[in-house]
Amino acid sequence: MQDSQSAEILYQQLAQSIAAPIRAGTLMRGERIPSVRELARSREVSIGTVLQAYRMLEDAHLIEARPRSGYFVASRPLNLPEPETSNPPADSMAVDVSSLAARVMHLAHDPGYISFGAACPSADLFSEERVRRAVSRAVQRHRATLCSYTTGYGDESLRRAIARHALRMGCQLDPQDIIVTNSCLESITLCLRAVTKPGDIVALESPTLFAFLEILENLHLRALEIPTHPRTGFSLDALQLAFDTQPVKAVLCVPTLSNPIGSSIPLADRQRLALMVAQRGIPLVEDVLYNDLAEQEDQRRAVRAFDSSGHVMMCGSFSKTVAPGLRLGWVEAGRWGAKLVRLKESTSGSQTAFLERALADLLTQLGIEAGYRQLRATVATRVDEARGLIARHFPAGTRLTDPQGGFILWVELPPAIDSLELFKVCLAENIVIAPGKMFSATGYFGHCIRLGLGGRWDDAHRQALRRVGELANSMMTLPAMPPGTDRVQALVK
Amino acid sequence: MQDSQSAEILYQQLAQSIAAPIRAGTLMRGERIPSVRELARSREVSIGTVLQAYRMLEDAHLIEARPRSGYFVASRPLNLPEPETSNPPADSMAVDVSSLAARVMHLAHDPGYISFGAACPSADLFSEERVRRAVSRAVQRHRATLCSYTTGYGDESLRRAIARHALRMGCQLDPQDIIVTNSCLESITLCLRAVTKPGDIVALESPTLFAFLEILENLHLRALEIPTHPRTGFSLDALQLAFDTQPVKAVLCVPTLSNPIGSSIPLADRQRLALMVAQRGIPLVEDVLYNDLAEQEDQRRAVRAFDSSGHVMMCGSFSKTVAPGLRLGWVEAGRWGAKLVRLKESTSGSQTAFLERALADLLTQLGIEAGYRQLRATVATRVDEARGLIARHFPAGTRLTDPQGGFILWVELPPAIDSLELFKVCLAENIVIAPGKMFSATGYFGHCIRLGLGGRWDDAHRQALRRVGELANSMMTLPAMPPGTDRVQALVK
Repeated sequence: MQDSQSAEILYQQLAQSIAAPIRAGTLMRGERIPSVRELARSREVSIGTVLQAYRMLEDAHLIEARPRSGYFVASRPLNLPEPETSNPPADSMAVDVSSLAARVMHLAHDPGYISFGAACPSADLFSEERVRRAVSRAVQRHRATLCSYTTGYGDESLRRAIARHALRMGCQLDPQDIIVTNSCLESITLCLRAVTKPGDIVALESPTLFAFLEILENLHLRALEIPTHPRTGFSLDALQLAFDTQPVKAVLCVPTLSNPIGSSIPLADRQRLALMVAQRGIPLVEDVLYNDLAEQEDQRRAVRAFDSSGHVMMCGSFSKTVAPGLRLGWVEAGRWGAKLVRLKESTSGSQTAFLERALADLLTQLGIEAGYRQLRATVATRVDEARGLIARHFPAGTRLTDPQGGFILWVELPPAIDSLELFKVCLAENIVIAPGKMFSATGYFGHCIRLGLGGRWDDAHRQALRRVGELANSMMTLPAMPPGTDRVQALVK
Repeated sequence: MQDSQSAEILYQQLAQSIAAPIRAGTLMRGERIPSVRELARSREVSIGTVLQAYRMLEDAHLIEARPRSGYFVASRPLNLPEPETSNPPADSMAVDVSSLAARVMHLAHDPGYISFGAACPSADLFSEERVRRAVSRAVQRHRATLCSYTTGYGDESLRRAIARHALRMGCQLDPQDIIVTNSCLESITLCLRAVTKPGDIVALESPTLFAFLEILENLHLRALEIPTHPRTGFSLDALQLAFDTQPVKAVLCVPTLSNPIGSSIPLADRQRLALMVAQRGIPLVEDVLYNDLAEQEDQRRAVRAFDSSGHVMMCGSFSKTVAPGLRLGWVEAGRWGAKLVRLKESTSGSQTAFLERALADLLTQLGIEAGYRQLRATVATRVDEARGLIARHFPAGTRLTDPQGGFILWVELPPAIDSLELFKVCLAENIVIAPGKMFSATGYFGHCIRLGLGGRWDDAHRQALRRVGELANSMMTLPAMPPGTDRVQALVK
């Protein structure tokens, strides 16, 4: 078991070392790459390992084998079309997704299933030893905090570390303005509580994270979903129209790698968005959870970087990028800072002080940048591979996102497929996917699914993903049959 | 410094060893206790230590010196009257206490002040080493959780430990029904969110914890304050009347050692309360934070123990009794359990798993019961001493609570004194008290203060408490002066 795991790590690392220069354009399309024997010799690995790595790269449509000529960088990239810009209704609506989301997420985290349901990175993507050392050090050095009642906005060193971290996103934050929370989700909940009251309208992406919809549902807020493009994010023109025609009280937005659609707002539009909300005095709750997973540096830049009026409330955490098991988030709430502090204190109090110290330690260690790079490369290879499998095994007419980072894919199946039904037949085969309806208050996206690829990724998962495609295919409406043909039999065949 | 601290611990322990049998009735009123020399010899401590201890017991009105006869158990206990049952208006009202409370609490936790403002126990009341060992062990043993995304309701072992803990309160909880939170405050917030909507009326004690009022304020709920007796808690007859005449949607109650008034509801009334809410189908949010600090076992029994209908939602944490620095709370929400789970998950997610293990470890250690006993004894001595100082140094007409446990006193000053003014003049002398208006939505209690005695307790604090009394005295309206007398000069004198 240990051996097969390390073999897997070996060929995955090998595949990544070839995928990276292809993606970066250093290796050009059509260029020849080393033969299996050459690579095995130069890297001092077995032929089998190279074969595995090449198969993985083939699956990801990054390389292709030409008979009797060897391996080449794929001349034509994966050519599945993207979903089109979403088209939600122009009216805001009350939200009711929590019961479906609850059932799906419960299964998504059940280790008894092969799960693409959750959007959480698995432990093997991180250095457990590094986190353990940081936590143990913090317990030793800050033992006096163990029995001291913690109050206030968060540990000073962590707030400084977060301010430093925000520099990478182009933001100069005052550590004194940063509030430490239990999670990014708590940050967002507090922001919305600070700037809305029940019945208010909140504009957000469409599709959007079901957890956001649950927050709106629980705070009795109305969701106004804005048409969203899978690459460039929600339409600022549509948002402007919403501002002009409806009493929008807040905008909730994931400008970088929006979950589930994977969009990242272009740099110029980030600036425009900051101006738009400032001009209207409408608070923008910006979730920067995934910014460190963006492949392009431009896309790590926060909208907050362009805001000088205090209308952007910035929410983040490190559970997807540094240490998933340390439950800590943060928020810098601009002009609503004082209100946030009181809300946080009266809602759940402070966080555990030595944990904050441990996270501060992790964030200021030298290797942090390399860690992000490594994480980005690992999940990129997985996502490439999964995209290849989807292209081959999913029904004709499938559309698929091509996110510039992260580990989440959004699949638009042919309209004939009810993804809630697909969810059920997958479940019967021990596979969990997230049906599209979870990600909107509109009832739309009934033929879409979200696939989270941050969890374990091995042959069982590859097989399961193929199987999802086969099951989807079997659900396609068949062409009209000659009279007398048994439709059901045709389906079962 | 180290020496004077250990000397202080020595005489405090000595004082406690005498105070305990007096309070328990083992040493009877008027009975002679050992002379200073006898005790110094038998306990092998210095004469000075015994003198300090006896002075402390005298201040606490537990012993008295009779000239040329020695020391005796005080024949007459401290005889300051209790405050009367509070008499809030019969209508519910919107809440607006958070700005005052924010200012006071900010100062109360500032180490630059001598603070009686907070209701937090100080670190020296707990075994830091014991907590450190439990946390370090948990990090080592459960290191796999450090990089695993945590979901769900809380660690199994902690939920079992909490269920076992609840047995001490007479409650048989199913561990599966217990949800781990960030704090008792978060538990209460989630309960109220689960059972109310904005504009709803919540009945609660009067005075009540300002943090409760802030929760109501932030959730746009209306507070209906119920007349509350400083020993027996809120009036069930008044509560019944409220049920009969107003659309009460929830009751929020601290049956044991209510903060700030220190009341504990008698056992029979707990049973009646459980029946009342079950009959009306009104949820009761029961805060059991202080139950382990109650001196009488009867008063540790929760209202939940008498509830078989699932209408009592039980909220607790261990930040006042086991480890103030570990930010973890819990809730068992009866029939609203499923709703609580979803609210918790979508509001702030799960807690840090290894911390939960550490707390589970602490809760199941053998010494836990002795720890509670020791904590109760230590704070009881402080409270006794503080009551003695108040009796001697505060204005005539002062009323004072006599809580059966805990470390919080509620002082009703003569009506002429504006406790907000007193707060200000105390602050000018570097002393923080909590003015009474923080503890009610009614605007009442303007002549009351809360004193928290869980923090440090040394000569500077004794001196500061005396000084609060002197300042209060100086604020008393003077009797009518002969014409021509300068009133201000008289006050300043």
